[in-house]
Amino acid sequence: MIDVNVRQGGKIPLYEEVAGKINYLIEQGTLRPGDRVPSIRNLSKQLQVSINTVKEAYSLLEDRRLLEARPQSGYYVCARLTELPAEPVVDRPAINPAEVSLSSIYQVVMRDLLDPNLLQLGIAVPNLELLPIEKLNRMLAREIRRFPTQAVSYSLPPGNLRLRKQIAQRLLLSGCTLGPDQIVITSGCVEAVVLALRTFCKPGDAVVIETPVYFNFLQMIQDLGLKALEIPASPRGGISLEALEYALDRNPGEVKACIVISNFNNPLGSRMSDEDKLRLVNMLEEHQVPLVEDDIYGDLSYSDERPSVAKSFDKTGNVLLCSSFSKTVAPGYRVGWIVAGRYQEEVERGKMLANVATASPTQLAIAEFLANGGYEHHLRSIRRVYARQTAQMGDAIGRSFPAGTRVSRPQGGFVLWVEMPEGVDSLLLYKKAKIMGITIAPGPIFSIDGKYRNCIRLNAACWTPAVEVAIETLGRLAEEQLAAS
Amino acid sequence: MIDVNVRQGGKIPLYEEVAGKINYLIEQGTLRPGDRVPSIRNLSKQLQVSINTVKEAYSLLEDRRLLEARPQSGYYVCARLTELPAEPVVDRPAINPAEVSLSSIYQVVMRDLLDPNLLQLGIAVPNLELLPIEKLNRMLAREIRRFPTQAVSYSLPPGNLRLRKQIAQRLLLSGCTLGPDQIVITSGCVEAVVLALRTFCKPGDAVVIETPVYFNFLQMIQDLGLKALEIPASPRGGISLEALEYALDRNPGEVKACIVISNFNNPLGSRMSDEDKLRLVNMLEEHQVPLVEDDIYGDLSYSDERPSVAKSFDKTGNVLLCSSFSKTVAPGYRVGWIVAGRYQEEVERGKMLANVATASPTQLAIAEFLANGGYEHHLRSIRRVYARQTAQMGDAIGRSFPAGTRVSRPQGGFVLWVEMPEGVDSLLLYKKAKIMGITIAPGPIFSIDGKYRNCIRLNAACWTPAVEVAIETLGRLAEEQLAAS
Repeated sequence: MIDVNVRQGGKIPLYEEVAGKINYLIEQGTLRPGDRVPSIRNLSKQLQVSINTVKEAYSLLEDRRLLEARPQSGYYVCARLTELPAEPVVDRPAINPAEVSLSSIYQVVMRDLLDPNLLQLGIAVPNLELLPIEKLNRMLAREIRRFPTQAVSYSLPPGNLRLRKQIAQRLLLSGCTLGPDQIVITSGCVEAVVLALRTFCKPGDAVVIETPVYFNFLQMIQDLGLKALEIPASPRGGISLEALEYALDRNPGEVKACIVISNFNNPLGSRMSDEDKLRLVNMLEEHQVPLVEDDIYGDLSYSDERPSVAKSFDKTGNVLLCSSFSKTVAPGYRVGWIVAGRYQEEVERGKMLANVATASPTQLAIAEFLANGGYEHHLRSIRRVYARQTAQMGDAIGRSFPAGTRVSRPQGGFVLWVEMPEGVDSLLLYKKAKIMGITIAPGPIFSIDGKYRNCIRLNAACWTPAVEVAIETLGRLAEEQLAAS
Repeated sequence: MIDVNVRQGGKIPLYEEVAGKINYLIEQGTLRPGDRVPSIRNLSKQLQVSINTVKEAYSLLEDRRLLEARPQSGYYVCARLTELPAEPVVDRPAINPAEVSLSSIYQVVMRDLLDPNLLQLGIAVPNLELLPIEKLNRMLAREIRRFPTQAVSYSLPPGNLRLRKQIAQRLLLSGCTLGPDQIVITSGCVEAVVLALRTFCKPGDAVVIETPVYFNFLQMIQDLGLKALEIPASPRGGISLEALEYALDRNPGEVKACIVISNFNNPLGSRMSDEDKLRLVNMLEEHQVPLVEDDIYGDLSYSDERPSVAKSFDKTGNVLLCSSFSKTVAPGYRVGWIVAGRYQEEVERGKMLANVATASPTQLAIAEFLANGGYEHHLRSIRRVYARQTAQMGDAIGRSFPAGTRVSRPQGGFVLWVEMPEGVDSLLLYKKAKIMGITIAPGPIFSIDGKYRNCIRLNAACWTPAVEVAIETLGRLAEEQLAAS
C-alpha cells in the first residue's frame, strides 16, 4: 500500500542532515553571529560526505538566513537582528472560560480582505505563484473527462474513496496508520474543525484554545455559542501543558474540546515536540476532552522531515485530525479532510447535514494530483521558498522596525508573529498602514479580550520588492508611533 | 441587463397555451376520463392555430398522462386510476413546538443511500441521464483554462460575481428584481437553509415547518437544538395558512423562523398560489418571523410557466430565498445560493465561518453554463420527461397498489407522495422492499412523531423497466400486508 514516493518523503536527505548539524551548533551558541563556518572542503572531509552535499547544506542554510556567503571569504553565521517574541507568562493561573464577544475590528479586517487594491499582508494565504495551477487544472480537466458521471454526482460522506486512500497513505509520514474509512472529506480545514466542534459541544460549553490563537477559531466559538478558555502558548513549543493541566483540573467537566495547531502554528509559528504531543494526548484523554488537532501547515515544514501529529499518539480515538490542501495546492478547490476518531459516524452525519457533500470535481483532481502529480516534489520546492522568504521578511523587520521588536522564527508555514515595543498600538498601525495601501493582522483579533495590542501577524508567503517596501513602511509607521508616545 | 434567453423563457409557447385549455376542461370535468377530445384538425380550426401546434399540445398532454392516443381513433382523456392524497385535517389546533428526536429509521435509510446494489427510489436525486454532463464538464474544463488563477483561489463570500449576475437575471422569471450583491453563493441548497437558520435561531427556538416535511429539515432542526412546530400542508396548495396563523398567535415570540418549499414541494408536490404566497409573506412579516423559502424544484415546472416565489412579494427583506443547481444541472458540483434579504451580512459571515467559500471551479462552470450553455433549453427538455415519468409512475401505482391508495399529482419536480390504506405499514414495507433490492422513503421520517405510517415517498426521476417492476413489487408487498392484517 505504501508507494515509493511516500517512503522517500519520510527519509531525511544527507544534505539536510548536514544542515541540521550546523543549525544545532548555531542554536547552541557554539557558532555565533559573524563566525566563519568550516569551509566546504573541510567539512566534507570531516563528515565524510561529498563536496556537493555540503554545498547543498550550506545553500539550504543560506535560504533559511542562517548563513551568508561572503565573496572570496566563505560562509558566515548571519547576524541575528531580532529576538524571538517573548515567552508567555505561564505562572499566573489560567483564567476561567469566557464568552467570546469580538469587537468590530474583525469585521473590518475581513472586509479589507476583499479589497484587491490593498497589499494583503494580513491574511494567511499561500503565494499564488507557488501553487501548481497549470498542472492541477489540467488534471481536473482530465479527471472529469475520465469520470464524467462521477464528476456531476454526489460524492456522499465520507467522500471520494481514491482521495481518502491517498490521504491515508500520506498520513504515514505524520506517524499515523489509518484506513480510508477513518477519513471524511470536507470543504476545507475550517469546515473540518467546525464539524468536530459541533459534534461534541453544546452552547455554553468551554473550549480550550491557545493564546494567541488563529482568529477564525474565536469566531467559530462565538458563532456556536461556546466559551473560550485561553491557555498561554510559546513561540517555540506551543501550548503550555502546565497551564493546560492546571485549567483542566480547575474546570472539571466544563471543558468539552481543545483546539491546537500543533505544527507551525498560526500565528506563533510554534511546533510542539513529540514528547509534548504525547503528553497532550494523554492529558486530554484522561480528562475525557477531545482534541481537535489542526495540521494545515504540517506539510510546509522547512526541513524535509515531516513532523508527526498528536494524532499519531492517540490510542483511543479521542483526537480528531483536521487539514486541507488550501495552503499547499489550491485554496479555491475547497478540499480538506478530518480523521474523526471515535466520532467518525457523527462527523459523517454532520457533513451530510451541513452541505450533503464536498464538490466532486475538485476531489477527483486532488486525488489524481496526490497519486500522480508529484505532490512530494512540489512540497520540497515550495518549502525552500517559504523558508527563504520568512527569513528574508524576518531580517527586514529587524532592520526596519523599532529597536526591541521581536519576531518569530518558524520552521514551517509562512506567517510571522511580530512583537513590537509596548508603545506601539497595532490597531492604530492597522489604520495607518491601510491608508498606505497595506493590510496587516493586528494582535487583538488573536485573543478574546484585546491582548497583543503591540503585536501583528504578517504573511510572508510573497517576497517581492513591493512587500519589501511595505515592511519598511510598517517599520517607519511603528517608529513614528513610538516617537509620538 | 435582461438577455434574450431570459425573456423567451418567460413567454408561454402557443402549444403550451393550447394544452392548458384542454387541461382546464379536464380539471373542470367538462372532459371526463374516457372522453374523446376534439380531433387535431377540428381543434386547429376552432382555435385558429396550426395543425402542428395542436399536435405538440396533444403530445405534451400525452406526456403528462392526461391524454392517450388510440390508433385509428384519436385522443382520449386517460382514466385516472388514483385519487390525490387526502387533504390534511386542519381544524384541530396546531400543536406546540416539540423537540425533534428522530429514531434510528433515518440513520438506516441514509446508510442505504450509499448502497449501489439497491434500486434507489427513496432518495430525491435527479435522473443522471437528464443532466447535461458532457457539456457542463466541457465548460468546466474550458473555464479553468480561461481563468486558471481564479480557479485555484478563494472565491470569498458572497462568491463569484458572474455567477451571481446570472442568478439575478434568472430571478426575474420568479418575479424578483435583485442585484448580484443580494445573493450569496453556497455549497448547495441545504447549506443555504442551514446558514439562514443559524443566523436567527438559537437553541431552544421554534421553527415552523410544513407536515409532511423534507426530512433533512427535521435533521437540521434537531442538530441545531431547535424545536419544530408542524403545520399541516395539503398536496395541492401547500401549508395551511389558517393553521399557521393560529399557531403564530398561540406562540407569540417563540417561533423564530418558518421554512417552506413553496413550489413543487418535497414530498407533497404542492404548489402555493400567488395569493397564498403573498398572504404568507405578510403574515410572517407581521409576526416578525423570517421566512426561509426553499425553491429548489421551482425550475422544474412541467409547464413552461416558471412559478413565482414568495420572495417576490417581500418588501422588507424578511424572506430568505434558497436554491441550487443540484436538481437540474449537477448535484456533485455543490453550487447553490441564497438571497438573504436583511440578513445578507450575517449570512456572508456565516458562510465564511462554515467553510470560507464554495469551490471556485464549479462556480465558474455553472456561471458559464447559465450564460452560454442553454440552461433554459435544457430545462424545457427535462421538464417534459419528468412530467411524463411522474405520470407514468402515478399510473403504475394506481394499477399495482391496493385499492384506496392515493398518489400526489405534482406539476413539477420528480417525487411522488403515496398514501396507502391504513393497514399498510411503510416501515415494514421498507424492510421487505429492501430485501427485494428496492429502497423507498417511509412516511414516518417526514414528521417528528412518526406520522404518515401508511405513506411513502417515491423518486420518479427515472422510469425504466426495472423501476416499473419495482413499482409492481411494492404494490404486491403492500397488498400482502393488507391481506395479512
